[in-house]
Amino acid sequence: MFEEGAILKRRWGEENVFDLSIGNPVMEPPVEFSQELKRLVENPLPGMHRYMENAGYPETRAAVAAQLSLETGIKFSMNDIVMACGTGGALNVVLKTILNQGDEVIVFAPYFMEYGNYIDNHGGCIKVLPTDERFMPKLDALEAAITAKTKAVIINSPNNPSGAVYSEDLIHRLGELLRKKESQYGIQIFLISDEAYRKIIYDGLKYPPVFGHYLQSIVVTSHSKDLALPGERIGYIAMHPNCSLREELMGGFIFCTRTLGYVNAPALMQHVVRNLQHVTVSVAEYQKKRDFLYGHLVEMGYSMIKPQGAFYMFPKSPLEDDVAFVNELRQWHVLTVPGRGFGSPGYFRVSYCVDDKTLEGSLAGFKRAAQKFNLC
Amino acid sequence: MFEEGAILKRRWGEENVFDLSIGNPVMEPPVEFSQELKRLVENPLPGMHRYMENAGYPETRAAVAAQLSLETGIKFSMNDIVMACGTGGALNVVLKTILNQGDEVIVFAPYFMEYGNYIDNHGGCIKVLPTDERFMPKLDALEAAITAKTKAVIINSPNNPSGAVYSEDLIHRLGELLRKKESQYGIQIFLISDEAYRKIIYDGLKYPPVFGHYLQSIVVTSHSKDLALPGERIGYIAMHPNCSLREELMGGFIFCTRTLGYVNAPALMQHVVRNLQHVTVSVAEYQKKRDFLYGHLVEMGYSMIKPQGAFYMFPKSPLEDDVAFVNELRQWHVLTVPGRGFGSPGYFRVSYCVDDKTLEGSLAGFKRAAQKFNLC
Repeated sequence: MFEEGAILKRRWGEENVFDLSIGNPVMEPPVEFSQELKRLVENPLPGMHRYMENAGYPETRAAVAAQLSLETGIKFSMNDIVMACGTGGALNVVLKTILNQGDEVIVFAPYFMEYGNYIDNHGGCIKVLPTDERFMPKLDALEAAITAKTKAVIINSPNNPSGAVYSEDLIHRLGELLRKKESQYGIQIFLISDEAYRKIIYDGLKYPPVFGHYLQSIVVTSHSKDLALPGERIGYIAMHPNCSLREELMGGFIFCTRTLGYVNAPALMQHVVRNLQHVTVSVAEYQKKRDFLYGHLVEMGYSMIKPQGAFYMFPKSPLEDDVAFVNELRQWHVLTVPGRGFGSPGYFRVSYCVDDKTLEGSLAGFKRAAQKFNLC
Repeated sequence: MFEEGAILKRRWGEENVFDLSIGNPVMEPPVEFSQELKRLVENPLPGMHRYMENAGYPETRAAVAAQLSLETGIKFSMNDIVMACGTGGALNVVLKTILNQGDEVIVFAPYFMEYGNYIDNHGGCIKVLPTDERFMPKLDALEAAITAKTKAVIINSPNNPSGAVYSEDLIHRLGELLRKKESQYGIQIFLISDEAYRKIIYDGLKYPPVFGHYLQSIVVTSHSKDLALPGERIGYIAMHPNCSLREELMGGFIFCTRTLGYVNAPALMQHVVRNLQHVTVSVAEYQKKRDFLYGHLVEMGYSMIKPQGAFYMFPKSPLEDDVAFVNELRQWHVLTVPGRGFGSPGYFRVSYCVDDKTLEGSLAGFKRAAQKFNLC
């Protein structure tokens, strides 16, 4: 998608393409980031670009643990944390650690399309379950889908692409269900929570951490969105301090970080994010963008659930064929992604982490498509 | 090894442990690196921490291509280059791209032990061949070992752990042999050249690039050693511009960079190394360290080939059991690595990319072990 946008921009002129197809945050990192980076570069630590332990700098892992303790009320230590090359790196390390050939991993559509590749990389089988009309996992479907081969369930809240945020009650019931199925089959099921968008959450909502509801939970996340550093590949894996397989998991995460060739999360960024665990980009600005685009699209007749987090919305496609509709929008120079890329045909994803000019410029195309298909 | 060294340093005191076990360069990056990093941080490019194309910034790939053109006399373009998360990342991407289940990959012992894990990650089978008494690949053994299932041969010159540098003549004959076997079996065999130590080369030797001798060659390397940035995970894949599968390979490298969860090489480092392609740490300093340690060890009676590159030496173990000998040295607080970790029992690896105090301090332990086993 990145490449496609670049080609169309060359063809039509940068200002005539309204690229809402990728989650590449337009915001620069917060000022605290620039200050911390400058401070480090002007006062370099000896050896600050060298190898460190594969799990990452103890000081950085301790800082992540302290912040998680604060957010969850559960006591984390550096021994529960492995620094990772972004959420993509973290997920590959976790999946390689826990999966045996043929193990099942359950995800809920719509879901981030790379999960399928990541699971496949390590011999697992993806099992895609539906969500309800508000994009919430259906627990009865989950109950029916879990088998003795189920090794993990991946959730992603705030969700890419729907923007849905799971409630504490849902997570609690999910935890209960997983415990029940664990004891029914005599297996262990890991709850992998992809929290890349944890800090991008609107309307005063409070994020309900999975850790309070399930011991076998593993969080994977990054500073790609909260510090606007997607290109820097800095994130982490955090496991529940009371997870029953804590030491084996830690050993596995470290081994797989090494042998998958990551070796370690980038050193300089580990130094920088150490003191920025409490910092986040301006969420209010993303909320403003959401309100602007949501308001306009709904007014034009598009039908969608109002996103509560992340920086995507996932309207219903006015055409049954979402690819055809995305092609239609492309004719008006508006780039979006068909829902089938997320396992949910009949929808399309709009990314609004772009500058206001792009958002404003996209409205004409959305409007023409709405008129063409008689949305209002 | 990193963790073991840290534990012993806590136990015996930092200054009483002579850790020659890891390739973590003691040198700080060259002054040009610090200047370039400072320049960028003080004059940030807009969006310089955002996602870019998975292959990396076009400007950085063009800079790498220009430097390679200069070094090899062959015309590279950015379309022959994919930026990678270090050599470990580069190798995983290449192997995932080219390997089918059960394909054979040939390496020559002694070899970097992670090759086995990397090949195994992607369904390949490692085939380890011996080298001669100077650690040079034996081409007759290679000729006998290649089968219709052979997909690649990995070479690593300057070699970790032996410090051996392959001659242009050897590489030429290797290329001839691979071409012959390709046409004999009607297959394609890739020559993967791990050149992490390409710039660390002594005695006025000139590095013979593989590209001049074999079209199906792929170079994987990093700036971990030449710019002393091992923790930053910045390197690249370069393929021969006339490789017959160029477009398929490029597509595969990009896909695998994405789906293995690397996504892209760290952004800031891509910006920094763009203008540093011609810069290298002080090789003279490493040569001084080599001369110092080599001279002393040989005088004590240790037997070894004088390394011509990288920053390791690989002496014969005075005990047949190299693990027992490494344990012996550890009793004198000198940390090294048994040769069997590199597929070559009966040797041990000494890493001399450490400060002079550590090198000097290690001599007493080497001396006591030499005396105990009557080396002189």
